[in-house]
Amino acid sequence: MDQATRDYIDAHLPETLDDLKRLTAQPSVSAQRLGLRECGEMVVDELRKAGFEAELVPTADPDFPTVIAEAEGASDTTLLLYNHYDVQPADPLDEWDTPPFEPVERDGYIYGRGISDDKGPLIARIAAIKALRETKGGLPIRVRWCIEGAEEIGSPGFVDFLTANAERLKADVCIWEGGGVNWDGRPLITLGVKGLLYVELTCRSAATDSHSSYAPVVPNPAWRLVWALASLKDSSERIRLRGFYDSVKPPLEAEAAALQALPDTSREFLHNLGVEMAVGEATDYEFRRRLIMDPTCNIAGFGSGYTGDGAKTILPATASAKIDFRLVPDQDPDEVLASLRAHLDEHGFSDIEVKVHSTEHPARTPIDDPFVKLVADTARTIYGAEPYLQPNMPGTGPQHPVQELLGVPVASCGIDYPGNHIHAPNENIRIDYFRLGVLHTAEVIEALGAGA
Amino acid sequence: MDQATRDYIDAHLPETLDDLKRLTAQPSVSAQRLGLRECGEMVVDELRKAGFEAELVPTADPDFPTVIAEAEGASDTTLLLYNHYDVQPADPLDEWDTPPFEPVERDGYIYGRGISDDKGPLIARIAAIKALRETKGGLPIRVRWCIEGAEEIGSPGFVDFLTANAERLKADVCIWEGGGVNWDGRPLITLGVKGLLYVELTCRSAATDSHSSYAPVVPNPAWRLVWALASLKDSSERIRLRGFYDSVKPPLEAEAAALQALPDTSREFLHNLGVEMAVGEATDYEFRRRLIMDPTCNIAGFGSGYTGDGAKTILPATASAKIDFRLVPDQDPDEVLASLRAHLDEHGFSDIEVKVHSTEHPARTPIDDPFVKLVADTARTIYGAEPYLQPNMPGTGPQHPVQELLGVPVASCGIDYPGNHIHAPNENIRIDYFRLGVLHTAEVIEALGAGA
Repeated sequence: MDQATRDYIDAHLPETLDDLKRLTAQPSVSAQRLGLRECGEMVVDELRKAGFEAELVPTADPDFPTVIAEAEGASDTTLLLYNHYDVQPADPLDEWDTPPFEPVERDGYIYGRGISDDKGPLIARIAAIKALRETKGGLPIRVRWCIEGAEEIGSPGFVDFLTANAERLKADVCIWEGGGVNWDGRPLITLGVKGLLYVELTCRSAATDSHSSYAPVVPNPAWRLVWALASLKDSSERIRLRGFYDSVKPPLEAEAAALQALPDTSREFLHNLGVEMAVGEATDYEFRRRLIMDPTCNIAGFGSGYTGDGAKTILPATASAKIDFRLVPDQDPDEVLASLRAHLDEHGFSDIEVKVHSTEHPARTPIDDPFVKLVADTARTIYGAEPYLQPNMPGTGPQHPVQELLGVPVASCGIDYPGNHIHAPNENIRIDYFRLGVLHTAEVIEALGAGA
Repeated sequence: MDQATRDYIDAHLPETLDDLKRLTAQPSVSAQRLGLRECGEMVVDELRKAGFEAELVPTADPDFPTVIAEAEGASDTTLLLYNHYDVQPADPLDEWDTPPFEPVERDGYIYGRGISDDKGPLIARIAAIKALRETKGGLPIRVRWCIEGAEEIGSPGFVDFLTANAERLKADVCIWEGGGVNWDGRPLITLGVKGLLYVELTCRSAATDSHSSYAPVVPNPAWRLVWALASLKDSSERIRLRGFYDSVKPPLEAEAAALQALPDTSREFLHNLGVEMAVGEATDYEFRRRLIMDPTCNIAGFGSGYTGDGAKTILPATASAKIDFRLVPDQDPDEVLASLRAHLDEHGFSDIEVKVHSTEHPARTPIDDPFVKLVADTARTIYGAEPYLQPNMPGTGPQHPVQELLGVPVASCGIDYPGNHIHAPNENIRIDYFRLGVLHTAEVIEALGAGA
């Protein structure tokens, strides 16, 4: 990148951060259907100011429109960007140091719900494109953009949306949300996402709660759910669904090498969450191998009976648990769901109802794809450090349909750092990493132009 | 009983039911420390109107005073009555057909929170004593009364209270709360209570909730609690605490015969609760043997993570479960607690905290005690049917200290019937059974006088 572009980015950084604060101050909580259209319209405005043709496109549920945008460039090479403008709910509110929708800058950080996930990356990319346009007289390649409004609730209907709009989003390569730096400040590029099967298990054994003295004869749905869950996974952490691990791809040699190259950040990771010891006392390679490569079966919630203060001697009528399975290539959420139903039936829990909240397929771009090399090479230039490559992130996103339907390699690079508290109180960005993310985006676009 | 007493009871029944409605309209929820003193004072007034010396005596916690009352009689034979004026919380409110603290009479029933447990039995006993006093010019024996204000929260401090007031409550025999009729209308006399150990198990694994994608490495307290609970009791319903069953007394021959004599009410019992099938598909003798004689380990509540609508992909920081063990003679709640702690430690759950909410010892009066025969004989007279004897009720009360400290046999007879929905919405009494309960109390007092 030439110095003019770099200077432009630095000179306009305060203005860029103001744009980010304004966007963060607009609540856009998909789980609560709060402020989505308002936020989507703000995003469209920002994109138009950066020279994009942009519009809010309705999805199957009109509360969650997707932004589609396009800017022409000197060549036909097309980069697709993926972001989302919706955010997680802000609760628990009393654990925030400052109000979640009133962004506050302090000591090189900015705090606010959604500032890191995913409004910061969105604004950083706009800033990079503005800088290129202003200092070069235009973009070297075509940029298309898909900015979802329902990512935090599992992107319902996204596959259909993508299918219907495939022509408008066709591209050669794709940069996903996520990516940034690791604890040591070296760039971190991720190449995929885990899939998801989010279900709710419910057991009802009576019409109403009853006196707990009836326990010798009245079936207790909380006990039944405990036994059913214990049959799904025991303290060895092995998931007991038949065939669950059959389609899990072992890491390729290059992927294992990339995992080896990652530093041991387990101590910082756990300390940051107030956790004493990792599952299985894993550290170093084993810690990150599990985090990145292992599928999970997580209890996100369990509710039954009386959970208030003090004691109430009741036998609950119902019990339910929210369970999310994170899946890795080539696990299929629909197959896992079928296996779960069969498992429950075979273990005597056919009375337990399974309700599906969301499903997503896992995705992973081959580590030897030329686009991965381009993203890594540009990161090396900008950060002045050897980038880490991560086969996929521990989290989930609708990357699989993009990869499948559009046939593009996908990588994540951006502004993240591991202390950003996404989905949690005091979500934040570090301004220095934000700036590097802007620079890297501009560098990627220039490199794509040079190779076109 | 002579006709005059019987006629007095019947003539004054409407007035008695008005007294009961007035007392029921006064909320007295011990779990919420609501209206207790007001209700206790109403009870004292009612007792004074019936010729008792009565007062509210402070207990260790001044919010829960106990009523102590005494009425002299022709002989020194002393009957101790035990009741309580506190009631369970009324929730879930939306499942009540009429407001819980606005008693409503309809088709031979009266509905209201606490009307059956335990304000109806209290007023029925007062009515019997008034009738004897008015038609006989006095009582044939001395009657003492202990009316607790904290029974529904496990009678904290009751042993100390009883020890301190043992002289004032000394008696030859004791009639407990509970007792009435079975589904077939034949009288049911119970001779004991189960004990209780109510604990809360809490597991905390992190400082705050985190993103569920961290599940491969961050320990999930809900899973740990599920595994710990599953180790306590599996789907065979066998409780796995070491030594748990060692001190369980098998039924005596006469107790087994009494259990055999009870009718099969399992269908009505389950139908009334909207339950399809009993635990272990038990029916008939096995159903009631379990209900009456088996100790339990019940999950009264389980709470962890997100339990609202929809999906939230979190990994909870804490999980807790409320567990009540019902204990049978001669199990000791303190020994069970020690065994629970040891079990958790031995199974790798030393991080799970155990908080005790309440403990009570089980109690059972020998079925061949002469007082049991007197209560049964008088029931036969009043109800015109052979009474059932039940070695103990499935529920709990502080009967053990009364039996131990005062050295008295204890039996329950009263106004209950199995459809009374105690601790549940639409708690009610049947007026015909209420009347029979009044008559039976008067008959017991007369018989004790005749035997004195």
